[in-house]
Amino acid sequence: MRATRIVQKILANYEGETPGVKARLCQMLMNGKLGGTGKMIILPVDQGFEHGPARSFAPNPAAYDPLYHYQLAIDAGLNAYAAPLGMLEAGADTYAGQIPTILKVNSANSLIPEEAPKDQAITASVDDALRLGCAAIGFTIYPGSGAGLGMFEEIAEMRREAAAKGVATVIWSYPRGEALTKNGETAIDIGAYAAQIAALLGAHIIKIKLSTDHLELGEAKKVYEAKGIDVSTMAARVKHCMEASFAGRRIVVFSGGASKGADSVYDDARAIRDGGGNGSIIGRNSFQRSREDALDLLGKLVDIYKGKA
Amino acid sequence: MRATRIVQKILANYEGETPGVKARLCQMLMNGKLGGTGKMIILPVDQGFEHGPARSFAPNPAAYDPLYHYQLAIDAGLNAYAAPLGMLEAGADTYAGQIPTILKVNSANSLIPEEAPKDQAITASVDDALRLGCAAIGFTIYPGSGAGLGMFEEIAEMRREAAAKGVATVIWSYPRGEALTKNGETAIDIGAYAAQIAALLGAHIIKIKLSTDHLELGEAKKVYEAKGIDVSTMAARVKHCMEASFAGRRIVVFSGGASKGADSVYDDARAIRDGGGNGSIIGRNSFQRSREDALDLLGKLVDIYKGKA
Amino acid sequence: MRATRIVQKILANYEGETPGVKARLCQMLMNGKLGGTGKMIILPVDQGFEHGPARSFAPNPAAYDPLYHYQLAIDAGLNAYAAPLGMLEAGADTYAGQIPTILKVNSANSLIPEEAPKDQAITASVDDALRLGCAAIGFTIYPGSGAGLGMFEEIAEMRREAAAKGVATVIWSYPRGEALTKNGETAIDIGAYAAQIAALLGAHIIKIKLSTDHLELGEAKKVYEAKGIDVSTMAARVKHCMEASFAGRRIVVFSGGASKGADSVYDDARAIRDGGGNGSIIGRNSFQRSREDALDLLGKLVDIYKGKA
Amino acid sequence: MRATRIVQKILANYEGETPGVKARLCQMLMNGKLGGTGKMIILPVDQGFEHGPARSFAPNPAAYDPLYHYQLAIDAGLNAYAAPLGMLEAGADTYAGQIPTILKVNSANSLIPEEAPKDQAITASVDDALRLGCAAIGFTIYPGSGAGLGMFEEIAEMRREAAAKGVATVIWSYPRGEALTKNGETAIDIGAYAAQIAALLGAHIIKIKLSTDHLELGEAKKVYEAKGIDVSTMAARVKHCMEASFAGRRIVVFSGGASKGADSVYDDARAIRDGGGNGSIIGRNSFQRSREDALDLLGKLVDIYKGKA
Amino acid sequence: MRATRIVQKILANYEGETPGVKARLCQMLMNGKLGGTGKMIILPVDQGFEHGPARSFAPNPAAYDPLYHYQLAIDAGLNAYAAPLGMLEAGADTYAGQIPTILKVNSANSLIPEEAPKDQAITASVDDALRLGCAAIGFTIYPGSGAGLGMFEEIAEMRREAAAKGVATVIWSYPRGEALTKNGETAIDIGAYAAQIAALLGAHIIKIKLSTDHLELGEAKKVYEAKGIDVSTMAARVKHCMEASFAGRRIVVFSGGASKGADSVYDDARAIRDGGGNGSIIGRNSFQRSREDALDLLGKLVDIYKGKA
Repeated sequence: MRATRIVQKILANYEGETPGVKARLCQMLMNGKLGGTGKMIILPVDQGFEHGPARSFAPNPAAYDPLYHYQLAIDAGLNAYAAPLGMLEAGADTYAGQIPTILKVNSANSLIPEEAPKDQAITASVDDALRLGCAAIGFTIYPGSGAGLGMFEEIAEMRREAAAKGVATVIWSYPRGEALTKNGETAIDIGAYAAQIAALLGAHIIKIKLSTDHLELGEAKKVYEAKGIDVSTMAARVKHCMEASFAGRRIVVFSGGASKGADSVYDDARAIRDGGGNGSIIGRNSFQRSREDALDLLGKLVDIYKGKA
Repeated sequence: MRATRIVQKILANYEGETPGVKARLCQMLMNGKLGGTGKMIILPVDQGFEHGPARSFAPNPAAYDPLYHYQLAIDAGLNAYAAPLGMLEAGADTYAGQIPTILKVNSANSLIPEEAPKDQAITASVDDALRLGCAAIGFTIYPGSGAGLGMFEEIAEMRREAAAKGVATVIWSYPRGEALTKNGETAIDIGAYAAQIAALLGAHIIKIKLSTDHLELGEAKKVYEAKGIDVSTMAARVKHCMEASFAGRRIVVFSGGASKGADSVYDDARAIRDGGGNGSIIGRNSFQRSREDALDLLGKLVDIYKGKA
Repeated sequence: MRATRIVQKILANYEGETPGVKARLCQMLMNGKLGGTGKMIILPVDQGFEHGPARSFAPNPAAYDPLYHYQLAIDAGLNAYAAPLGMLEAGADTYAGQIPTILKVNSANSLIPEEAPKDQAITASVDDALRLGCAAIGFTIYPGSGAGLGMFEEIAEMRREAAAKGVATVIWSYPRGEALTKNGETAIDIGAYAAQIAALLGAHIIKIKLSTDHLELGEAKKVYEAKGIDVSTMAARVKHCMEASFAGRRIVVFSGGASKGADSVYDDARAIRDGGGNGSIIGRNSFQRSREDALDLLGKLVDIYKGKA
Repeated sequence: MRATRIVQKILANYEGETPGVKARLCQMLMNGKLGGTGKMIILPVDQGFEHGPARSFAPNPAAYDPLYHYQLAIDAGLNAYAAPLGMLEAGADTYAGQIPTILKVNSANSLIPEEAPKDQAITASVDDALRLGCAAIGFTIYPGSGAGLGMFEEIAEMRREAAAKGVATVIWSYPRGEALTKNGETAIDIGAYAAQIAALLGAHIIKIKLSTDHLELGEAKKVYEAKGIDVSTMAARVKHCMEASFAGRRIVVFSGGASKGADSVYDDARAIRDGGGNGSIIGRNSFQRSREDALDLLGKLVDIYKGKA
Repeated sequence: MRATRIVQKILANYEGETPGVKARLCQMLMNGKLGGTGKMIILPVDQGFEHGPARSFAPNPAAYDPLYHYQLAIDAGLNAYAAPLGMLEAGADTYAGQIPTILKVNSANSLIPEEAPKDQAITASVDDALRLGCAAIGFTIYPGSGAGLGMFEEIAEMRREAAAKGVATVIWSYPRGEALTKNGETAIDIGAYAAQIAALLGAHIIKIKLSTDHLELGEAKKVYEAKGIDVSTMAARVKHCMEASFAGRRIVVFSGGASKGADSVYDDARAIRDGGGNGSIIGRNSFQRSREDALDLLGKLVDIYKGKA
């Protein structure tokens, strides 16, 4: 498939990367209704692991079936579908080659003892990703956790292996843990910092949360105020996070968090678009709606990213 | 052996899996008196490791002999026999090829210090399983333990090796540890979660305990109540756990726990059958009875799963 | 599956072998219409490699389809189906677990230059056999060829790996090459020698051709005559080959060669039975007939081996 | 050396084991004055590591010399001699082939900090055992220690390697650690449990301590009392431990602990014999006596195991 | 088993060798009716490979059964039994530990094209020897063949591995090939040379043929005549070959070749004894006789080596 100029420009930022990785990025960027625009919408379904099956799928019981999500991502014309090993395998044969997939290679769960440092288990490998034909591996890091440095080391090693074998790396960079207040997890200084760490670890695609205008770290706060960095609007904060991602040289997608009203989801997307972000990674807000509602919502998001809504 | 339509349909759910693994699943599903029905009864004998020999075998001293269990499983027409390395080796030559075996590759014991996180030792390998001609490896995970993430990583790696070499994986998913109350270990939200985790880790067969109607996690409880998920009967809870196992796309067998009256065992089996579960894994309730009583009880269970009792 | 006494007795001859290999031998010996009798019929389909597709399949064009052969072997109630990698893979998912398979791991072809020593290429591995769930690997040796010693070394190494991983080994022992006349290839002294070599190399199942009463080697001829070894009938020659196979301690199946009349095939089988051989490996004489005729012929062979015809 | 019927019967219990391991077991069972009786006396000299040299050897200074122990074991007609790497190497050339040796591959010492979990260091390998011509490796596990699971994993892996290479495995199963009281270490329920764990880990020879009639674990105590398991005499307790060792299918030798009066040693041996145990592993009670006294004592033990004393 | 002084003296010649190898040599030297005398009789049964089954076993059909040879070697009280992989495996379990075995790891056959350089195929490995509990590997070299240098390299590598793992090496040093006349193969200068080459390659036991007084090489002939080396009697030639084997520091056993009269066999043995050789390796002359005759003959050979006949 011929890449558009805008996609070629994005790929050019991944200097010195293996052609295999670039081809996988190109595959995701050219797929679906946003193919060729440089924008992306990704469907992630790892909530069964994180929150348990009923909390994740009871609102829309059709979603208990792993094949439902493949079909939703394809029918909505999304760029990629991300899930843990078991979810991907369950439909790996039926949907082989029909939608770029991202193998989530580490996972947390809600049954971890409170006092343990926030961490995840590595539950799949780069070889699994190759065997399943995945475009990328996905890996969560928890900057702020006592286990954070260990997680950085894990992804550094897996990314090296993945890139050498032509598989791209998506890092979920989620500040969390003993070093942070609850508000701090979504503070703008922390969000930008999380993006920067992911970029420095070599992420090809960075996944972060949308931020608030809270500033968590004292030393950082001084600079934000002294330099008059604009963090007053969501779009401004997205723009700041893009700057923190190598001046926009890395693809960054933003997650929306818990299920909420459609208008709120649309406002987020417009802010991402206006701030120069690359798109949305949107799980519960899609699969916890009925299939019809989800297709409506995702269709509207496509329009927003195309500048039509 | 020609597979029945129902077995072929079950195998079709294991998309993209190696033919070797499917052949092993087929071997277990087609073996014994329930062969071809899609239902299974498995004899597990790892209690000598878990609880010690006297607690396990003194109620029926013939059971001290490892060969007793092979013969019982064969004579009762079960689908498979699961045990740790030493137990399987003790009769490996006499019974070679006569009953599908599952090598339990990790084991706990009752001599672990109280304060240690709940964990098990890896006591056998995939190569042992191949050498002994086993159909599957069996591995226990403890979601809820501080050692849980490490156990997930261990089985993720062993499963990958096993599947590549045509050996299936059975995960004993037993919530236990610091994150859970005693009641929580058998709560329905936790049981469904345990099944989901095993499925996400790539288990081919999931072994969980039957649940109570207790709800352990606050966030989950809200959903169960809001969505009116029926957990009032044992059959309803089995049905819910099957949904949590990829909408029934994975084989799930249920364990019955400590020795109890035969009627209670039959009631459990009827609930498993009526809820759409695949069968029973039944250790102490078989081998702690006399051989004659055990054969009677297992024969009755076969009838129940066949819908005749 | 409970093994019959006769099968258990056969297995006991494989002293010190891994339980995995014994289980695979048991699987083949207990499968199909001859299951449990100690007799075997195997369908081999490597003629497409050896002679090309038209020579092999044009007489019965349905046989161009690899799935045809799986189905034929199953419907005829055979013990196993043997073929090269591509043939097995083509139906590996559809027929997983339904018929024991033998992966032919080396292959010759008709495009090899005349003057080259008779040899074969290794075209699959033990790991392929595991992945595909095969009961055994199959390997051809050419005693009599300048390449023979190299072939012995290849199978010695593959057998070691296979046995350790619970996969049985079938050796096609086909005298051929510069050291032999054309008549010598099927001479009785050479056939017995071929069986002996396969046994010494550690074959679990030996495949040789039926012999004529020709004696090829001068030194051997003296002994046959001096000792009055009876080679006058086909049954006597089969009996002699069984003696050469560790006094009958190894399973030996006989191949019938090119397509011929059904009566001739039946006579061969009766001779194999009466001489104490374990059975037939019968390719062209089954798949080059129409499916209906092939099922008739194979059904009759089953009757012969059961002593009913 | 032609094996006696009783030894052949013992070997037959090691189903599916490599002929190499069986040959090593045969070598030990056929060696010395008890050769062929199915009974064994083993000399273990690892006390220098465990307790230091003076505590071990000052009572009989000749024993500081490693060659002393080889000579003692040979002159007393014992079945085998067990020691750590350095001890074995010191006389390995002089005594090559003259007495079966067991390489103790892990060792503790008295300089480990009190609060550390009870553990041992791996101080030799299977390759060392091969190089030194040893019949077996010896490995200590500490069920009850926080380090116990790790020790199980270590020996599971070493045993696999050893068995594949024809070296037998002896497990010293010594309950010890945070999970146990001092009395619990020698309680009969714990002793039987220790034997069971070693058997399940695949030990070819199990070494446990003689037990008291104390019952340590509440759940176990109930069963012992309810089932009326006889633990009133030493012989009864030995018999119970043999049952726990796969109904007597594994060789079990009992250790006598600290130095004590000869009559007490004889009483122990009579109880082991009468309870069906396979013999004694007797260190300090032999080498801390003068050579003359030790030979007397060991000679008397031989007589006891032969039923003559 | 306590080694005799004469055996200890022989072992002392293997300076710097691993204790494992010395233990294996000791095991063979101490086994059977000649145990402890420094003399050996070995039963080799690789003629089925070399000459085919009928030529080898038809003279005594009981010998078609591999178990026959184990039993013969044990009943005759021989020091060791040597055979290729398949032969050893066939009785590996029944006879585990009852007779030292030598795994013949390379083999020739009578179906090799005339014009090919004399060579053998490697048909087993050191790991096979360990798994089967063998005391040694046996390897044939053909000094005089165009393939000879390659064979030297093969055994050099296998010997290194074997010795490190405590397995001894026996070299069959058989001059043969393009560089030699038929008479030259048994010429005394060639026989002594063959022994020397085996010793230089690191053989622990050297197997050569008895020589004639023919001198093959011109340069050698000059020296033999100039120095008056006595090669006039068989005993003198044996003595000369022992000198060529590091002045008697290596164990040398002599083979007798084709079946012949008993008196001739006895004369050979007396010459070996009188010339200081270590013993006989005697295949066809034992197993081609009836079992009774073979036991008589071997018993007489024992007497000869003990100086009683």
